[in-house]
Amino acid sequence: MAYYIGIDIGGTNIACGIVDDNYEIVARSKVKTNAPRPYAEILEDIKQSVRLACEELGVKPSDAASIGIGCPGTCNSDGVVEYSNNLGFVNVPLRSDIESEFGVSTYLDNDANAAAFGEYLAGAAKGAKNAVAITLGTGVGAGIIIDGKIYSGSNCAGGEIGHTVLVVDGRDCTCGRKGCFETYSSATGLIRTTREAIELNPDSIAAKIAEEDGRVSARTAYNALKQGCPVGKQVTDEFVKYLAAGIANTINIFQPDILCIGGGVCNEGDTLLVPLRKAVSEQVYTKNSAKNTEIVVCSLGNDAGIIGAALLCKQ
Amino acid sequence: MAYYIGIDIGGTNIACGIVDDNYEIVARSKVKTNAPRPYAEILEDIKQSVRLACEELGVKPSDAASIGIGCPGTCNSDGVVEYSNNLGFVNVPLRSDIESEFGVSTYLDNDANAAAFGEYLAGAAKGAKNAVAITLGTGVGAGIIIDGKIYSGSNCAGGEIGHTVLVVDGRDCTCGRKGCFETYSSATGLIRTTREAIELNPDSIAAKIAEEDGRVSARTAYNALKQGCPVGKQVTDEFVKYLAAGIANTINIFQPDILCIGGGVCNEGDTLLVPLRKAVSEQVYTKNSAKNTEIVVCSLGNDAGIIGAALLCKQ
Repeated sequence: MAYYIGIDIGGTNIACGIVDDNYEIVARSKVKTNAPRPYAEILEDIKQSVRLACEELGVKPSDAASIGIGCPGTCNSDGVVEYSNNLGFVNVPLRSDIESEFGVSTYLDNDANAAAFGEYLAGAAKGAKNAVAITLGTGVGAGIIIDGKIYSGSNCAGGEIGHTVLVVDGRDCTCGRKGCFETYSSATGLIRTTREAIELNPDSIAAKIAEEDGRVSARTAYNALKQGCPVGKQVTDEFVKYLAAGIANTINIFQPDILCIGGGVCNEGDTLLVPLRKAVSEQVYTKNSAKNTEIVVCSLGNDAGIIGAALLCKQ
Repeated sequence: MAYYIGIDIGGTNIACGIVDDNYEIVARSKVKTNAPRPYAEILEDIKQSVRLACEELGVKPSDAASIGIGCPGTCNSDGVVEYSNNLGFVNVPLRSDIESEFGVSTYLDNDANAAAFGEYLAGAAKGAKNAVAITLGTGVGAGIIIDGKIYSGSNCAGGEIGHTVLVVDGRDCTCGRKGCFETYSSATGLIRTTREAIELNPDSIAAKIAEEDGRVSARTAYNALKQGCPVGKQVTDEFVKYLAAGIANTINIFQPDILCIGGGVCNEGDTLLVPLRKAVSEQVYTKNSAKNTEIVVCSLGNDAGIIGAALLCKQ
C-alpha cells in the first residue's frame, strides 16, 4: 500500500503525518517551529519531523509515494515560498530542499489551500466539484477548489477572501484596509465585538463570565447567550450577520457545491449554523434556484492540512 | 476560412455577428427583442437575426463552424435558459432549438460570461490565463475566466460580483440585499450619488449642468469635475473609492493576470483610471509582490458579447 507524507507548517508546530490510500493518517510527529529563526534551522526540523513520523510507522521516507508541504504565505508554482510573514521566509526553495533530501517527488502549497484540498478529498467537501473552505481563526483563512484543483490565481496569492471589505471605512485590518471580512468574522473579531459590548454593559451576564474567566474569549458571548444574556444575544446576532454577509458574497461569486467553515466557533453547532444558514439563504442571488450551495462544518480539524498536503500529488 | 455565428441577446436588441478565424466580425444583423413576449416569438427573431447576418455575407447558416448564444440570466450546461428576468424566459431549451433549426453545433452561456470570454480571446484580456471582466452599466456585471474557461460555479449562476456587499446595511439593491457593489459602482449608482450631492448643493456647477441637461446622468459629476466643481470632485472621489474597494476585493480573491472594466464611465479614461489604479494598488493584499493584476479598460465594447458567443466552441 502506498503512503504519502504530509507536512503542515504552523507558526507554533511543524506537524507531519503519513497518509495512506484511504486518506487516513497512520503515523504522526510534531516538532516546535520556534519561528522566527533562520530558514536553515527550521528546514532541519522539517526534515526531522519527516524522519520521526516514518520511524513511528517503521518505513523509510524514500519509499513514500510523495511528500507534500502546506506552508503559510505565498508559495509559488516553482515550489518557492516567496514570502511568509509568520515564518520570516523570503524566497526560500522549500520544495527542492525537501525533494533532494529524501529523493521523493515533493509538492508545496499554501497551508490554507492544502487544508481546503484535504477537506475536498477526505472531509466535509468530499464529492464536490467546486468548494470553498473558510476557517474562522485568528484571521479568516480560505481555500478555493475549482474543478477539483486548488485555485490561487496567477501569482499564487489568491483566495484571500478574509481580506475582502464588507464595510467600507469599517474596522482597521492588519492588511492595511478597513472593514475586511476577517475583522468581523474571525475569533479575534468576535472577541472584539464581545469586548465592546461588555464595556457598554458592565452588569451583563457576559461581563460576569468574562470576569470569572479572567478574559474575554471567542466563547464568552455564546456562553452568555446560553444563560439568557441579552448582550450575548446581541453579540452573537451581530457575529452571524457579518459572517452571513461574507459567506453570501462568496457564494454569489463561486456558487460552489459546498462551502465548509472551520475554526473553534463551529463547536457551537446549530446555535451558530441554524441562524447562519437562514441568513445566507435569504441573501444569496440564487435564493429561488433549485440548486444552492450547502454550508457545512469542516470535518477534519487540524488534520485537514496534513492530509491535503500529503495528497497534493493528486491534483 | 471557417466562420462562427455569435448572437448577443439583450433586453432591447438581438445582435448577431459572423466572426472569422481572426476573431473579427465580418457581417452583422440587429433585430428588436421587444421583451417581454412569448419565447416562441423571440426565438423566431433570433433565428431571423442569424439568417440576416448570413445573407449579408452571402453564406448559409448551415455552413458555419458553430453557433454561440449569449443570453441574460442563468444558462445551464444543458443549453437551457433556466431563468431570465429581463426576457421572461423560464426553462427554455434555447440551445437545442437553434441547433435543430440550422443543423450546426450550438453553445449557450450567460451574456456577461460570453462578453468576458470575448475580451479574453480577442480584447483587453488577451493572453491572460485568469481574467475578470467587470461591466459598469445599469448594474455591475461580471464574467470570470479561469485557466481559459468561463467559470460560473456548480449551478451556472456564479460570477455575480456585482451582488457582493461592500457596505453591510448600505444602499438597497434590487437583489434584496443591502450595500451591494452595484448600488455604488454601476452607472445607476453613480447617478444616485450625484443626485444626492446635487440635492445638498443646489447652487453647484454640477446642479447647473444637470439642469441644462434636463437630468442627472452618469456623466454629470465628471463633467462638473472638469469645470472645477467641488461637488463633482466629491462625487467622483466617492465613486472611485467604492469601485476601488470592489475591485481590490475581486483581486484579493482571484489575483487574475488582467481585470478589465467596461461601461460608459470608462470613456472618462485617465480621469477615472489613474486614481482608481492608485487606490487599488494601495489596498490589494499583494501590494508588495512583484506580480500584480493589471487593470485595463475593455476594448471590444458591445462586440465582446458577439465575439465571445461566436467562439464559445473554443472553450
